[in-house]
Amino acid sequence: MIRATQDNEYVELTSPTQLPKASGFLWNEKMMIHVNCRGYAVAQFMQPEPAKYSYAPNLEAKTFMQPEQPYYAHHPGRFLYVKDEETGEIFSAPYEPVRVLPDQYTFAVGKHHIVWKLEHLGFAVEMTLSLPKDEAMELWRVKVKNLSDRKRKLSIYPYFTVGYMSWMNQSAEYHEELQGMVCSAITPYQKYQDYAKIKQLKDKTFLLADQPPRAWEASQEAFEGEGGIGMPSAVQQEELSKGDARYEMPLCVLQYSLELTPGEDKLYRFIFGPAKTEEEIAQIRQQYFLNAASGSEDGFAAAEREYAGYIQEGKGCIEIKTPDPELDNFVNHWLPRQMYYHGQTNRLTTDPQTRNYLQDNMGMSYIKPQMARNAFLTALSQQNASGAMPDGIILHEAAELKYINQVPHMDHCVWLPICLSTYLDETNDYTILEEEVAFAGGEEMATVYEHINRAMFWLMEATDERGLNYIDQGDWCDPMNMVGYKGKGVSGWLTMASAYAFMIWADICATSGRPEMSRKLAAAADEANVVINQYLWDGNWYARGITDDNVVFGISKDTEGRIFINPQGWALLCGAADASKQEKLMRAVKEQLETPYGLEKLAPSYTAMREDVGRVTQKHPGTAENGAVYNHAAAFYIYALYAVGEPNDAYRLLRKMIPGPDPEDLIRRGQLPVFIPNYYRGAYRQFPRTAGRSSHLFNTGTVPWVYRCLIDGLFGVQGNEEGIRIHPQLPAHWEEASVKRSFRGAELHVAMKREAGVTAVEVYVNGSRIEDGIIKNVEAGRVYDVLVKLPPQ
Amino acid sequence: MIRATQDNEYVELTSPTQLPKASGFLWNEKMMIHVNCRGYAVAQFMQPEPAKYSYAPNLEAKTFMQPEQPYYAHHPGRFLYVKDEETGEIFSAPYEPVRVLPDQYTFAVGKHHIVWKLEHLGFAVEMTLSLPKDEAMELWRVKVKNLSDRKRKLSIYPYFTVGYMSWMNQSAEYHEELQGMVCSAITPYQKYQDYAKIKQLKDKTFLLADQPPRAWEASQEAFEGEGGIGMPSAVQQEELSKGDARYEMPLCVLQYSLELTPGEDKLYRFIFGPAKTEEEIAQIRQQYFLNAASGSEDGFAAAEREYAGYIQEGKGCIEIKTPDPELDNFVNHWLPRQMYYHGQTNRLTTDPQTRNYLQDNMGMSYIKPQMARNAFLTALSQQNASGAMPDGIILHEAAELKYINQVPHMDHCVWLPICLSTYLDETNDYTILEEEVAFAGGEEMATVYEHINRAMFWLMEATDERGLNYIDQGDWCDPMNMVGYKGKGVSGWLTMASAYAFMIWADICATSGRPEMSRKLAAAADEANVVINQYLWDGNWYARGITDDNVVFGISKDTEGRIFINPQGWALLCGAADASKQEKLMRAVKEQLETPYGLEKLAPSYTAMREDVGRVTQKHPGTAENGAVYNHAAAFYIYALYAVGEPNDAYRLLRKMIPGPDPEDLIRRGQLPVFIPNYYRGAYRQFPRTAGRSSHLFNTGTVPWVYRCLIDGLFGVQGNEEGIRIHPQLPAHWEEASVKRSFRGAELHVAMKREAGVTAVEVYVNGSRIEDGIIKNVEAGRVYDVLVKLPPQ
Repeated sequence: MIRATQDNEYVELTSPTQLPKASGFLWNEKMMIHVNCRGYAVAQFMQPEPAKYSYAPNLEAKTFMQPEQPYYAHHPGRFLYVKDEETGEIFSAPYEPVRVLPDQYTFAVGKHHIVWKLEHLGFAVEMTLSLPKDEAMELWRVKVKNLSDRKRKLSIYPYFTVGYMSWMNQSAEYHEELQGMVCSAITPYQKYQDYAKIKQLKDKTFLLADQPPRAWEASQEAFEGEGGIGMPSAVQQEELSKGDARYEMPLCVLQYSLELTPGEDKLYRFIFGPAKTEEEIAQIRQQYFLNAASGSEDGFAAAEREYAGYIQEGKGCIEIKTPDPELDNFVNHWLPRQMYYHGQTNRLTTDPQTRNYLQDNMGMSYIKPQMARNAFLTALSQQNASGAMPDGIILHEAAELKYINQVPHMDHCVWLPICLSTYLDETNDYTILEEEVAFAGGEEMATVYEHINRAMFWLMEATDERGLNYIDQGDWCDPMNMVGYKGKGVSGWLTMASAYAFMIWADICATSGRPEMSRKLAAAADEANVVINQYLWDGNWYARGITDDNVVFGISKDTEGRIFINPQGWALLCGAADASKQEKLMRAVKEQLETPYGLEKLAPSYTAMREDVGRVTQKHPGTAENGAVYNHAAAFYIYALYAVGEPNDAYRLLRKMIPGPDPEDLIRRGQLPVFIPNYYRGAYRQFPRTAGRSSHLFNTGTVPWVYRCLIDGLFGVQGNEEGIRIHPQLPAHWEEASVKRSFRGAELHVAMKREAGVTAVEVYVNGSRIEDGIIKNVEAGRVYDVLVKLPPQ
Repeated sequence: MIRATQDNEYVELTSPTQLPKASGFLWNEKMMIHVNCRGYAVAQFMQPEPAKYSYAPNLEAKTFMQPEQPYYAHHPGRFLYVKDEETGEIFSAPYEPVRVLPDQYTFAVGKHHIVWKLEHLGFAVEMTLSLPKDEAMELWRVKVKNLSDRKRKLSIYPYFTVGYMSWMNQSAEYHEELQGMVCSAITPYQKYQDYAKIKQLKDKTFLLADQPPRAWEASQEAFEGEGGIGMPSAVQQEELSKGDARYEMPLCVLQYSLELTPGEDKLYRFIFGPAKTEEEIAQIRQQYFLNAASGSEDGFAAAEREYAGYIQEGKGCIEIKTPDPELDNFVNHWLPRQMYYHGQTNRLTTDPQTRNYLQDNMGMSYIKPQMARNAFLTALSQQNASGAMPDGIILHEAAELKYINQVPHMDHCVWLPICLSTYLDETNDYTILEEEVAFAGGEEMATVYEHINRAMFWLMEATDERGLNYIDQGDWCDPMNMVGYKGKGVSGWLTMASAYAFMIWADICATSGRPEMSRKLAAAADEANVVINQYLWDGNWYARGITDDNVVFGISKDTEGRIFINPQGWALLCGAADASKQEKLMRAVKEQLETPYGLEKLAPSYTAMREDVGRVTQKHPGTAENGAVYNHAAAFYIYALYAVGEPNDAYRLLRKMIPGPDPEDLIRRGQLPVFIPNYYRGAYRQFPRTAGRSSHLFNTGTVPWVYRCLIDGLFGVQGNEEGIRIHPQLPAHWEEASVKRSFRGAELHVAMKREAGVTAVEVYVNGSRIEDGIIKNVEAGRVYDVLVKLPPQ
């Protein structure tokens, strides 16, 4: 059903109907495209706010990307109709819209391109999508081949949906001189004050071809006729009408008629994307199709090559080989790619939530630490002088805080030391603490050290008389918006997260020569842990919080939302839970939150509004925050399990994040193992039929935490101020593993093996035993051969 | 192709493909539904803001209703799949989604119900839609009949689309005890402040059946399978799966399997609509299906009957018989119905634009004058004490000014006397002038007379040093938003409209015994007419306005937007144009603005942004305000033609508003003659291919003006303070016509005839000649036989 290619550059699916929503995605500096195995596509580009150039057929609300995107007959997509000119038979690649099952089919999701290959009626069709590295446009190759032993005549119709662009103005026509289609629209607006913005937008959609088509059509309605998209009337005619669209729904479809001798193939290339003017489109044509870049390579081919290089730059800092080949493939190829995507695109928003921005850049610490450094400074430059962090980080002067960023959340400060610590572990660049950065408003300057101090003290102040942290309208759980909006409710998790942040900051202070501040922070963490145990321990696990009306929730007497994952994991991290509590809460998690698809965020899912908890309880049971296998929260917990030395449970849960290889599991989740989605459906015990389904949404803070689980936990190759500590926590059933670790310019080849007679981890570097397991003074450019002996199980 | 039934209660179309967007609509106190011949539907209900219960498959933007609605495969609709259980053949009624052309087909748009009838495979299917009069729900009858001479087995599947309800929560399941489907959702929101509102919404969609189904399906995806909506996999199975939907796209589909002997038929009834709770749905079931209303009539049948009565109340005040049967049918049946719709629903908004609200109620003066009276008082109660009218009238305490009502427009005051005059003509109720009404804020009270005085003086003040009226960000042309936003630009049309309003108000003042005020107003009108001629006459027509930068536009040297209809018609109305100018401007209109489909609003359509005119120039050429045959503006002009005594041109243009009867014309417009759309596509000389297409949007201020054209102009049966003046202006080719006129409780039977030897209009009442043509002191309850002799042509 699925297979990874030998070089692990692709994950391939061999049927368009087994996992009908299986998908892959590409991105660059300006855009993102998410395509599925059947040909449907969701693309958006930044100008600077997210915009579309291929639209749904009715008006789309301007809102964030939705999980579990429903596909339907007129969903945006990229397709190729193929007509056998001798028999009149018609099918479409990759599968939609005609839905004829081809004889052979492959959907190959690669890192820098995505390929659909199919064979039908004696023709082979190959469609390949790539991107340039810094322009919003799609680069398509379409190859058709005659597989039969006789000459064949056919027409092919590359069909790029454009859809309902605007109610103000839309039209489309073929431009002979551009050799392509141009669709024009005006983004609707009503106030003249918006005109200045609208005026700048790239409101055109174009399709350029490298070869002149025989004919074209520009109106969706004219194209379809009574045949519909399943068997368009225009395709049934000999030739497309060469029509235009005038306030009709535009589309881009071309017709090429060709003859192929046995074994002959023919390649067509297309560029599809947004533009502001026809001049701009002409320049694109010039650059990509007309100018030779070097030798036989034109701009199109050069762009594909450059894009491959751009993606290649996003490789991670470990390459692993373990008894688990699916984990190897995922960790070596797909996990860093997904992390890189987050760091580079900021999720295609101009106002990322502060916690997302910091965590996404925590991940970039492993790939492009300089970008992470800049991001931390950007975030701090928007901190209030009081220490409070804003709800979102503005990345463009014209950007505004939108949607959820208009709702006050209380947790943003905790991510500063937590995310910065990863950057420090990886780079040892403590100079960042001395950087001078302004506060919001720009008047007052202070060092990063002072900024974070203020953030920590702000957290200490934002507590009630018991010392528990106020939740206001939410913390890391956005829609838990009615627990504390009256100003009294507190968050159990946030109190723990604050304590953990204090611990981390205490360590950084100690390391950077600030022992007094370090003691102060450590004391604050201890105090928090005391009240956590006093007010939140419920007997077998920790409560999630206490409402405005002083009702403790997330406890055993609740029938819904009885246990939340976050307070359990973070109680392990912040040190609140002693050994007995640790054991109890881990048992509760396993019994109540673990499912075949991972850990649920809370259980049982709420099935009705609980007004003293808020909007989360109105979300669909098992989705988003309401009882889903919310991988971000699960990753925290797994990280905590490594922190307290539970490698077997940690590994088992980690593996549940990656779909497959079991076919049943793949079908259930409906997703290829090329990214971790933000959630799998939960409510496993309440609604088992739908549990496990992927959200197909690849924007998630999960990925840097999974990477930290690997670096700090499973493979134990975490940096520190002295060098790198080697301390693997392999699961019991692994006899060995090896890791190639890039670290501060050096390369470590770490072999790990269980060996009879070994009782504790033994680390050897270039043959010599290192007692504390820390390789100190790692030198850039050097290669270290590291052997780790582990006790047998 | 189309035909009116003998009683003119229906307009019928005999093919689903000739006019694929042909449609009809029903409404009641709570909702509106617009259905087309193929089964697609757009419905919304008020709670109090417009809401949906059958959604498009992706998120819909919350915006106003769009013209030229694009339909696509998954557009909301109401369908019936029919499967011949012996052969497995499947088709669907009325046509979508399977798109099998039936042997016989009729789409019959009635006044209080809409019927689709078809015959295929030896089955007859009849689907009938009606509404209750004051609840948001659809009442459906589905009848199947065996037309063949042998016993037949079949399954029918009533299929009511629900679509993508919400990303927060959506589910659906069959409820045995309700005998129906219930789909649940939560309207998305992010701020807890919105919860109080969200909490009140009817977020459920239900389908109730009068008979228990064999099976059902609640998930769109499960229903379609790989067959898609064109041939759903579930329908190809023997029995629907009885499944539910859990965060899957909900739908309501039931299966009934039946046997029919030759000639036998079977009737099923369904109710589809929104609800808040299951209890509410249970009550609906009780009321409509279980309780007997009277004798054999249950609540369902009673509701249908009551609805017919409700619509019947909306009849107009004239019934005509002329040499033009299409005009007769339209005027007797459809025009008052459309006018009634406007008056009763306020276009399904809680903040109608002030000018729309006043004009819609001008129309209600002919149907329910008491409602018109109340509306005028409501509007005036929101007038500012300065005399300025707000941009929209708030009809519900929770309503806000939205969309276009947030843009300041300058014309709202002019509609007060203009619309009130029709009410006074019709009712002679001058007591309204003495009603005390508060100004906005509620502190100051004043009579209606004083309110309108202030409005007139406000208009006189809102002028520049030349005496021309400022346009600010728009006047009756909403998107002409950049002519005067800097505070200098003026509107030619608005200056004329003000002059006309002054004249009207002068008349009302004179009639109501305020001669001094009357003289003042008349003088103001005269002054305005002087400056209009001084600054706006361009040699052959009047300019549209003068921009902030003192550029006169809408003139002969403009290459686009060279001539606008409104300044021409209103110059006729306000008396600015002398005989020579009248002749010139009428010639210019005929040459440059008249098309086979009516009068364009401006020509040539703008094809590019003109920044000193504004957004109108970015609208698609030939649509909406940019050069469309904008019927509202055309109706003003026709009214003006009657005012200056041009009955032939007026009639010719009037007829162009009604599609058909010529088949070519019907196909071009794509609309049945059951309503006048807000526009037909214009830009006839620029883009002839698409000119004439209907917008299919039936919200338009056109209709009361067309009625005024008939009452005040064509048939000349306009009321005044003495009684009713009989002064027809029949087109030259009409030899006779008759009108039954209801007027102030009396009934006039007016026969009009050309007669040799007659040189001017001669009016006879019950046999006696009336010299001035005014029937005075009309007595309620009496019937007047009126004969009008007209000169021969």
